[in-house]
Amino acid sequence: MRRLKVTLEYDGANFAGFQKQSGAGIRTVQGILEETLARLTGEETPVIGAGRTDSGVHALGQVVHFETGSSIPAERFCRALNGKLPPDIAALDAEPVDASFHARYSALGKKYRYLVFNSRKPLVLWRNHCCRFPESLEMAAVKETAAILAGEHDFRAFSAAGSGVKSTVRRLFSLDAEQQEEWISITAVANGFLYKMMRLLVGTLLAAGSGKLSPDQVKQILERGERGRGGATAPPQGLYLVQVFYSKGEFS
Amino acid sequence: MRRLKVTLEYDGANFAGFQKQSGAGIRTVQGILEETLARLTGEETPVIGAGRTDSGVHALGQVVHFETGSSIPAERFCRALNGKLPPDIAALDAEPVDASFHARYSALGKKYRYLVFNSRKPLVLWRNHCCRFPESLEMAAVKETAAILAGEHDFRAFSAAGSGVKSTVRRLFSLDAEQQEEWISITAVANGFLYKMMRLLVGTLLAAGSGKLSPDQVKQILERGERGRGGATAPPQGLYLVQVFYSKGEFS
Repeated sequence: MRRLKVTLEYDGANFAGFQKQSGAGIRTVQGILEETLARLTGEETPVIGAGRTDSGVHALGQVVHFETGSSIPAERFCRALNGKLPPDIAALDAEPVDASFHARYSALGKKYRYLVFNSRKPLVLWRNHCCRFPESLEMAAVKETAAILAGEHDFRAFSAAGSGVKSTVRRLFSLDAEQQEEWISITAVANGFLYKMMRLLVGTLLAAGSGKLSPDQVKQILERGERGRGGATAPPQGLYLVQVFYSKGEFS
Repeated sequence: MRRLKVTLEYDGANFAGFQKQSGAGIRTVQGILEETLARLTGEETPVIGAGRTDSGVHALGQVVHFETGSSIPAERFCRALNGKLPPDIAALDAEPVDASFHARYSALGKKYRYLVFNSRKPLVLWRNHCCRFPESLEMAAVKETAAILAGEHDFRAFSAAGSGVKSTVRRLFSLDAEQQEEWISITAVANGFLYKMMRLLVGTLLAAGSGKLSPDQVKQILERGERGRGGATAPPQGLYLVQVFYSKGEFS
């Protein structure tokens, strides 16, 4: 047996999230991967993911690990797996790792990106891959608010209740917003993200950019840990798990 | 009764093309529009489109016209229609036109764009919205070949047989290819496009860029009108009908 680390891209539109769920016919990333590995290798092997993306959330670089006794060399594993995976998920890279590697616990950080279509026009072609925000945005206010949120803080106010984590302190290495015509991309790199944290941060930046919250109000919400006082939770279809970092050198 | 000109965006992925087809359960743009107009206005009115996009082809600015006795003002027609249309199609604009306007016959030209993902990486998130071309491309050869194809020519070699048009001469005002990282967009403006012409032009540019055809060979194919000698017909999912022009001033 050996352990493989596999990097995945998937289109979240037709998945009920990453995590396998009981109940027939619920299509999850983990479920599809385990089924496909069973068809490829004949083995029933649990797949462990770096992060549990929600229903509708996409990944450009989700990382998983699993054990396999298969003789397929790591460099051919991607192609073999992709030959059997459905078209909305693909393995981008596979490499052997030692038994101490864990997709979730070995991760030092993650990068998420959120894509906003800032327009009053209907959103048709990209409706499953971004979120439309029709109100006009003041990018200076978005950036000022992002600068307040970046850094090491107790992000309790920007987490959904009930995730049961011990600490809600996270280090947000960077939170950047870029505008190109009607498109705004918001990118965050952190040592970890609380449940729904990225979507709550995005909702808060959009509230600040559209004048519903001032940067000072956001600062207060952050400092006081006031759940439910920030912006709305941005919808899942605009969110992408871009990269999972396993060494300090990867952060940039 | 009055005539309305409506500009549409649609995602071609789940449509069997623009043109209504006989047979139950075949989902077409024209069919969905006529059904939706019937529900909105109570009228059975034929919808005439500027171009018959193939199955899988998208539109950012398809134009249609139809007659209606509805009292909904033109400026509110889009919103009313969009309230009843499925999420993969939307009206972007509606304006009253006089009875001499015809979406197809009044058109002076069209702009199409084709999106290529030039990479050996799997294509997952954008699989329905571009075409993957894994071979390396020499952009200089693509541009040199595009310059040969631009202009007024008999494009017989770049048309699918059986469309029954009288003349295969068209004026290709421009044919441009732009590269940005792994993405190549090919944009064409012409006074008209023969059946599958854009996809045949794109296939030929890709063949030239990957060294399978020389610019001189393409010139010969064009001059001799040799069907089937150019590149392969590029697949439909990378193609977008961007704009239909009805006045000379719109060309740019």
